[in-house]
Amino acid sequence: MTRSQKQIPLHLNISEQIQQRIISGYYLPGTKLPSERKLIEEWKVSRITIRRAIANLVQQGLVTTHQGKGAFVTEKHKVAYTLSSPLTFLQNDLANKGIGLSLQNITFELVTATAELQKILQLPSNNPTAYLQKKLLLTDNVPGGVDITYILPEIGQKLATELKQNMTFPVLERNNWKIERVAAIIECTNANLELSEYLDVSLGHPLLVYRHTAYTTHNHPLVHGETISRGDRFCYSVEQFS
Amino acid sequence: MTRSQKQIPLHLNISEQIQQRIISGYYLPGTKLPSERKLIEEWKVSRITIRRAIANLVQQGLVTTHQGKGAFVTEKHKVAYTLSSPLTFLQNDLANKGIGLSLQNITFELVTATAELQKILQLPSNNPTAYLQKKLLLTDNVPGGVDITYILPEIGQKLATELKQNMTFPVLERNNWKIERVAAIIECTNANLELSEYLDVSLGHPLLVYRHTAYTTHNHPLVHGETISRGDRFCYSVEQFS
Repeated sequence: MTRSQKQIPLHLNISEQIQQRIISGYYLPGTKLPSERKLIEEWKVSRITIRRAIANLVQQGLVTTHQGKGAFVTEKHKVAYTLSSPLTFLQNDLANKGIGLSLQNITFELVTATAELQKILQLPSNNPTAYLQKKLLLTDNVPGGVDITYILPEIGQKLATELKQNMTFPVLERNNWKIERVAAIIECTNANLELSEYLDVSLGHPLLVYRHTAYTTHNHPLVHGETISRGDRFCYSVEQFS
Repeated sequence: MTRSQKQIPLHLNISEQIQQRIISGYYLPGTKLPSERKLIEEWKVSRITIRRAIANLVQQGLVTTHQGKGAFVTEKHKVAYTLSSPLTFLQNDLANKGIGLSLQNITFELVTATAELQKILQLPSNNPTAYLQKKLLLTDNVPGGVDITYILPEIGQKLATELKQNMTFPVLERNNWKIERVAAIIECTNANLELSEYLDVSLGHPLLVYRHTAYTTHNHPLVHGETISRGDRFCYSVEQFS
């Protein structure tokens, strides 16, 4: 709030001005920023100051560096999942937009449920278990998200083969488990080590989380999980009516 | 994917194990982590390794450091805005949850519209203008978000005094501009310098963005803007039905 009264470090001043050029379209998405040498000449500052300015832009997701190739203005094409009622499954919604969704199974195993999961999935209180499935989601063959889902044990056991090769909701519906309602929270988080490796991002990279529980008839929960996607590649769209 | 085959740096190994303790509830939200000295003793590593491990946890948002007081497990209480139809305005939705929403006007000025904004707000193509309002949003008196809204010039001029003191949608409805539809995109981004100062977070901190356009009758746009909130304090909830 007292910004104008404070001394702003030189590298921040420069990164803010470069940011303005990106926002105004002077530097276009996908194009290479001028070389370090040219930026040093333009701003008449040290190499270390320019490097810090670029690092600020990388940290803000505005610029991506490719080893040995320089710094590029981040491309803005994000895949949007439309949160609509009636519910359209992710794969169908993306197909309608011309985007292919595929998956790679990472884990599929029976685990002991935590107290929280036991409550959410209404599992028996003595020895509650659920199948834990982790899968990598690819949009047009590029890793964009990781899905971590807990499935009722009787469903996971019966449909294991299908679930390892397909998205969860279509498999459930094909097997007469109608999805009547999905309750979800959308939040953001930072990549931990495991997610940073699957999604090819640095530790701490901003990620969108769609944490959801799917219910069949009579409010009977079937699955609970999180779809965690790269914030630079994915978003959600929603319409509200009065 | 080849994680098990790779050599993981010691500080990452330690931060992952501390993360497990946080997730399992062994270290509870809001409590202080053991001191650097105790962690060094436990893991039998150097001070620099422990500091890097803690820095990893800070970067993931799992731990918050307070100068001179040590490192604390981040508290998890997030404010959720329910994206429902019929539309409930943010202030009313939070009031229903016992959370007070207030605002501080930062900027209110007539600006020249970009080509994109001109299209979104259906402004005249010769000399398109709009009022730009920036305001700080506080939940229970704590800064949680910044709202950046572009308002039709005729509305901004007429309702300037009210808009500087109140949330946009209720002011519009009180003045007979009924909000019929809000179309929104939810995405995440990183804090730039300006946002990091308003929201008291570090540069690059993950932020949720609710980018929206509000329409009155006959699909006539009234305002377009972004509500940018701290990812560690805010989330969106949504229900989808078959």
